[in-house]
Amino acid sequence: MKERVRKLFERLETPVDALVVANSVEPHLDQSFFYLFDVPSGLFEGSVLVARPDGRIDLLTSPLEAQTAEEAAKGDTSITVHRVERDGTEAQLGKILDGATTVGLNFAELTHGWFTHLEKLRPGTTWVDVSAPIRKVRAVKDREEVERLRRAAEIGSKVGVEIPTLLRRGMTELELAAEIEYRMNRHGASGRSFATIVAFGPHGAEPHYSPGEARLAAGDSIVCDYGAFFRRYASDITRSFHFGRPDPEMHRVHDIVERAQQAALAAVRPGVPGKEVHLAAQRVIDDSPYKGRLIHGVGHTIGLAVHDGWGYNAKVDEPIEEGMVLTVEPGIYLPGKGGVRIEDDIVVTRSGYEMLSTAPRGYLEVAA
Amino acid sequence: MKERVRKLFERLETPVDALVVANSVEPHLDQSFFYLFDVPSGLFEGSVLVARPDGRIDLLTSPLEAQTAEEAAKGDTSITVHRVERDGTEAQLGKILDGATTVGLNFAELTHGWFTHLEKLRPGTTWVDVSAPIRKVRAVKDREEVERLRRAAEIGSKVGVEIPTLLRRGMTELELAAEIEYRMNRHGASGRSFATIVAFGPHGAEPHYSPGEARLAAGDSIVCDYGAFFRRYASDITRSFHFGRPDPEMHRVHDIVERAQQAALAAVRPGVPGKEVHLAAQRVIDDSPYKGRLIHGVGHTIGLAVHDGWGYNAKVDEPIEEGMVLTVEPGIYLPGKGGVRIEDDIVVTRSGYEMLSTAPRGYLEVAA
Repeated sequence: MKERVRKLFERLETPVDALVVANSVEPHLDQSFFYLFDVPSGLFEGSVLVARPDGRIDLLTSPLEAQTAEEAAKGDTSITVHRVERDGTEAQLGKILDGATTVGLNFAELTHGWFTHLEKLRPGTTWVDVSAPIRKVRAVKDREEVERLRRAAEIGSKVGVEIPTLLRRGMTELELAAEIEYRMNRHGASGRSFATIVAFGPHGAEPHYSPGEARLAAGDSIVCDYGAFFRRYASDITRSFHFGRPDPEMHRVHDIVERAQQAALAAVRPGVPGKEVHLAAQRVIDDSPYKGRLIHGVGHTIGLAVHDGWGYNAKVDEPIEEGMVLTVEPGIYLPGKGGVRIEDDIVVTRSGYEMLSTAPRGYLEVAA
Repeated sequence: MKERVRKLFERLETPVDALVVANSVEPHLDQSFFYLFDVPSGLFEGSVLVARPDGRIDLLTSPLEAQTAEEAAKGDTSITVHRVERDGTEAQLGKILDGATTVGLNFAELTHGWFTHLEKLRPGTTWVDVSAPIRKVRAVKDREEVERLRRAAEIGSKVGVEIPTLLRRGMTELELAAEIEYRMNRHGASGRSFATIVAFGPHGAEPHYSPGEARLAAGDSIVCDYGAFFRRYASDITRSFHFGRPDPEMHRVHDIVERAQQAALAAVRPGVPGKEVHLAAQRVIDDSPYKGRLIHGVGHTIGLAVHDGWGYNAKVDEPIEEGMVLTVEPGIYLPGKGGVRIEDDIVVTRSGYEMLSTAPRGYLEVAA
């Protein structure tokens, strides 16, 4: 992981003697920990990683996960694993930081509580916020990361193909969500990357709806937004279906969303400001009878977390870069009626993009 | 939720004009947000909650979840939902905090990044760390919370009964984990409360092992540690099994762990320092041939997160209180051979405890 550490230090505007990534208790774990230390499993609550400009890493971990950490570090002489009891972590960290006067921290994922501990532990230290460079470095994926993201997207795509076969009149949203998650796991996911959204009928009008006891009825539109973790990397896919007698309006809406997604995809290439991707989709929707019905940004970078880096809305100047992996997910939301969203994961290439998710995107009308 | 807000303000040692709970991006969401605002679903990234000593709540949420928030707040005049775009949140928050000079923050779950934003937004404010009182208030559950925790534990118990029927020679750990999670969801969970641990054979020696491609073979011991979320509340259950020809040593180990759990449970009652519960289990194990093989604290409080409040090890003086919900989970770990852990969820009653998880605890030897 020396390579990732070095890449990060090169990006820093203010040089630091060391970078500290400190985990708290789940869910407050800094995902950069797992970027800099590629360990396939383990929770690592309370663990701390100290990285140096030369690529060296000191890792402080409790006996609970020490074996996992030692196995992951095996053969990599740049990583030193320290097995410490949780309440001995700070003392050990103090020793490791001896001599470091300027220390980088990931303000975006460090708890303020940890920060106050660090201040007490190493008074006089200059703490530098390195969350911006961390975000930048993490947004551009290396080959290994793209492979994992591809696997995560493939798992989601397989399930996307299966969803139409799972639909049964009277099934609840929660039941369909359970099937989707089960199938992702059976296809090799280590779990869902976020709480699966299954929205029947009018529920589809709310982008972040959570599935409940609503039962599938003929005439319902269906939005399924779900994703898998594969070796800590996430996918995020949405497919919209229709159950029972086709609804000409929803079909038209789906066509517009498809066109909006195509327009957004066509705008993707290195150097383009993120907002251009959003605006390309928004223009299609705003030129349709559904003006104003795209109520969220059209996508976001994805990686060790499902929202990992940037969201792309009409205001983001940050450029798209080669190697970024992002979602493209326009939607139209009709309160009281339903919604349609289509979401795919792509990797940005030198001249455009490559699709990572491959499930068919057409509007599937499934007989009730 | 006025009641919870009031309870929290009563606990504060330093009076504050307002309490701010600010969410970042998943996974960095402050679980106290969902304690103070009981909303069944929704992610609420970037949302902010401002609570007042009189029980009033201002809730700033993006259009993505505004509808969910408004429905949850319906009929509760103490809650005002503000629909704001993400980049308008800080300005709106500044207005709401106008006049508040002393503001409480949950340092334990607030990101340091959010803290620096708040400092800029409201210079001159005195920020008070209220994470200790929040932890205390959240640790003692009200009736509604106990009911959800009971449901979460019941879901886990149902699956605990089913696990022996799922075991097949040659199945992988990941396959068994997928079955466990699927069944929890089918029994009504909204998802797993943490990444399921399934450890075959020697893998059971590592408490935080993550399931992989290892295949179940005759003679393997099996540790399954899993839990469900039910309306945001977690369960956490471990059962240990044996596959194939009984292994007299592992059976003996299981008996000792059972006795250790019984001893720990017998120590539970209001007023007892947490360490006493741990030490009761540790004594049983240290008096056996497996001295020193309990390598973690014997339990932890549980609630909106799986590790929610305290872990109980040999050093915790914090007393057990009536209404706390906690796990009791001694284990013995034998490197190279395997492990046994038994974990249940209990609610502390006036005179002792009540079991929330009910799956049989005996050592199940399943024919291969």
